[in-house]
Amino acid sequence: MANVPFAERTTKAEIEEGTAFAPKFDEHGLIPCITTDHETGEPLMFAFMNAEALRQTIALGEAVYWSRSRAELWHKGATSGHVQIVKELRVDCDQDAIWLRVDPQGKGSCHVGYRSCFFRSVPLGEGEKELQMEEAEKMYDPKAVYGG
Amino acid sequence: MANVPFAERTTKAEIEEGTAFAPKFDEHGLIPCITTDHETGEPLMFAFMNAEALRQTIALGEAVYWSRSRAELWHKGATSGHVQIVKELRVDCDQDAIWLRVDPQGKGSCHVGYRSCFFRSVPLGEGEKELQMEEAEKMYDPKAVYGG
Repeated sequence: MANVPFAERTTKAEIEEGTAFAPKFDEHGLIPCITTDHETGEPLMFAFMNAEALRQTIALGEAVYWSRSRAELWHKGATSGHVQIVKELRVDCDQDAIWLRVDPQGKGSCHVGYRSCFFRSVPLGEGEKELQMEEAEKMYDPKAVYGG
Repeated sequence: MANVPFAERTTKAEIEEGTAFAPKFDEHGLIPCITTDHETGEPLMFAFMNAEALRQTIALGEAVYWSRSRAELWHKGATSGHVQIVKELRVDCDQDAIWLRVDPQGKGSCHVGYRSCFFRSVPLGEGEKELQMEEAEKMYDPKAVYGG
């Protein structure tokens, strides 16, 4: 286990305005994480971490998530080479969400091939929705990186 | 109910690369949402939406979340006046996370008083952590806005 101790969660005031790092994990032991490009500010992906993933991310300085589909630690880039070097890690007011600012190695952070996982927008207003593409092209060939 | 129909979730290929809007809600009926400032790109907050909150956000063009603590729809700004006007709404590859780009009315999006909920950083590396303040001052007085 990475040596990154977490503090006890005490009072609302201490959690929200203090300096003790006391992250809250949900009933599955997970905390949500927003990951943005540290240069452009663009959200690249959204994922979850368990306590060990969060500890490893902090200790290593590279993004480590928890894969819910595979039920295992997920060192981003271990397969694709698209490691995310952590430039800054922030926690929100009630310490139940993480924001990672990363320097992504490789052109695409999304397993589909795009720069960001958020490559489609939803038109506003009432009625039927058709998603709009917001990235012109894939940044890499996912079949070449991940296999067929 | 706001008239924003969702599509059925069909194949992985259609969900990940198609144009049908088929959001996935978790076992509590919730989908995570990242909210950023549309001008600066800064993450302001992280919250959840249920299906009706997502529909209302899209129909109204203002951020509506689901408050887990109060177990009710949460039209951001209803109490504080800090409405978030939605400039763009995106969905991620597997359509289980939302990204809102908003024009925040009011100087602070965080109920503690800061511009962003992510006003503290966690130093990287092993060992004890002391959170670092990343915003110089509160943008408004939360007691004046929300009461004592």
